[in-house]
Amino acid sequence: MAKDKLIGVDLGGTTIKFAILTDEGEVQQKWSIQTNILEDGKHIVPDIIESINHHLDLYQLDKSRVIGIGMGTPGTVNREEGTVKGAYNLNWAQEQAVKDPIQAGTGFDLTIDNDANVAALGEAWKGAGNNDADVSFITLGTGVGGGLVANHELIHGIAGAGGEVGHIIVEPNGYLCTCGNHGCLEQYASATGVVHLAQDFAEQYAGESKLNRMIDNGEEVTSKIIFDLAKEGDYLANETVDKLAYYLGYAAATISNILNPSAIVIGGGVAAAGEFLRERVEKNWTKFAFPTVRTSTVVKLAELGNDAGVIGAASLANKNRQDVLL
Amino acid sequence: MAKDKLIGVDLGGTTIKFAILTDEGEVQQKWSIQTNILEDGKHIVPDIIESINHHLDLYQLDKSRVIGIGMGTPGTVNREEGTVKGAYNLNWAQEQAVKDPIQAGTGFDLTIDNDANVAALGEAWKGAGNNDADVSFITLGTGVGGGLVANHELIHGIAGAGGEVGHIIVEPNGYLCTCGNHGCLEQYASATGVVHLAQDFAEQYAGESKLNRMIDNGEEVTSKIIFDLAKEGDYLANETVDKLAYYLGYAAATISNILNPSAIVIGGGVAAAGEFLRERVEKNWTKFAFPTVRTSTVVKLAELGNDAGVIGAASLANKNRQDVLL
Repeated sequence: MAKDKLIGVDLGGTTIKFAILTDEGEVQQKWSIQTNILEDGKHIVPDIIESINHHLDLYQLDKSRVIGIGMGTPGTVNREEGTVKGAYNLNWAQEQAVKDPIQAGTGFDLTIDNDANVAALGEAWKGAGNNDADVSFITLGTGVGGGLVANHELIHGIAGAGGEVGHIIVEPNGYLCTCGNHGCLEQYASATGVVHLAQDFAEQYAGESKLNRMIDNGEEVTSKIIFDLAKEGDYLANETVDKLAYYLGYAAATISNILNPSAIVIGGGVAAAGEFLRERVEKNWTKFAFPTVRTSTVVKLAELGNDAGVIGAASLANKNRQDVLL
Repeated sequence: MAKDKLIGVDLGGTTIKFAILTDEGEVQQKWSIQTNILEDGKHIVPDIIESINHHLDLYQLDKSRVIGIGMGTPGTVNREEGTVKGAYNLNWAQEQAVKDPIQAGTGFDLTIDNDANVAALGEAWKGAGNNDADVSFITLGTGVGGGLVANHELIHGIAGAGGEVGHIIVEPNGYLCTCGNHGCLEQYASATGVVHLAQDFAEQYAGESKLNRMIDNGEEVTSKIIFDLAKEGDYLANETVDKLAYYLGYAAATISNILNPSAIVIGGGVAAAGEFLRERVEKNWTKFAFPTVRTSTVVKLAELGNDAGVIGAASLANKNRQDVLL
């Protein structure tokens, strides 16, 4: 029987998402399970195997139709060995074998990559990237990550640090980053970065602003509160969002000048602010983009939401298939 | 007979360089001719055809051994159509057919790309890049150009502006660039950029410096003079080189954080300053590079000099060969 199905797995710290897709990228079945991180995360791999086998039975899917499994994971991925380490939200501090046990337990080939890269592949293939050859993805969450696709391939670089867009330095001598450098994009455009910016603005501002009062009163301020207040017209919140948009637009323009992708795609929790954020980023990006880039690259919002991971993961299996050359 | 020879052509405004190489990249014959740019550059393509055919006869090389021709050219290249436009130093203002006439006139396949990309391929294949999969090349000349190789492929992007590293903005609101933006790397690290920096420093400096006196006297100052004086210990010249190295180190770190190449290779006329420049660039690069990048990517000088173009051009023909999958 022709092989025409892909399995995508998106491993996260709270849930593991699964999907069965056609080799054209159409999601046919989706499910998820809780991530059991107890006992050094030793249940995670067996749970994945059990869940895949169980659902193939449940859907009565002929195993001979499955091309393979692709999986996105937190941590540092050794793609050749199929191992993961430093995935602290899974309690996988030490090197963890993933590929060998899952291949043995399911009978399918497994290809893995890190979660940001896999989300980038998803958006590039079936989301805002329209399956173009060159797509750059920036995800704004607790941190700032990314995945860069050039000539239809992920850029990993020599040590897997390709696409570390959160550590592009946008403000030399700026905020200290967890990486030890100063002024990384992550310190301005992540959920915590935007709160840091608001706190700094609040110290210098004495005018009327609900955000300012909240900070002065020691109330908890989140990136969502800042964006909501900005949309309501709060002065300090708008100054904060403008500054974030400046740094993100600058970094996005630098990526664009280097890669000239068809799209710079912005996703992640902070990007839930949607068009309100995108248009401000684009305004700054326009100032810093090379003319040819300005008229060919487009700044877009991510389109797949939570499905980007399973779809992109599945695409890893598709690329690795043996029966066709893509 | 097995096909095992490549022809590389490096088309420039004053000379056209040619080489015959083995498919392993060993240069076996080199020659060059003057570029005749008269009459809208209409002699250039016929001269290339005549010179190739003449030298194949001269060396008695069996045409059936030639895999193909690769060529680097100034201007904006349409790789699919095999045409070039906007190559003003060739007097090719309008679109010029290159691929079709050279293929017809020689009987070989021709692959073309722009000169900076071709030089990058040369350095990546046989020079400082050691044939690694990921190599970034920055060339410092009249302008600042570059070529970026990821996964063994050049990054062109959607409109061919991938690798426009001269237009990475290193100083928001900085010097006005010919592209219309402000603060592009090219305005600080090109041969004219470094002179501009020196002139600005001279205005603010009243101390002892031969460079300062030259500028005050209206003498002609070149990037070579500035580097030579810096090596002799001239204060102002050293301040100028330090500033260039700061901007170049910053841009090189940004490229490194995005692509994590095995090497960032610096070439071109300004890089003739050699290790004196490289070590200052590296010092700044270290401050801005992400830790994983800092320990995996290396800042190197170009190694092939003028041969980078013909070697990289030849590699284009090798990649396009039909008989093997690389």
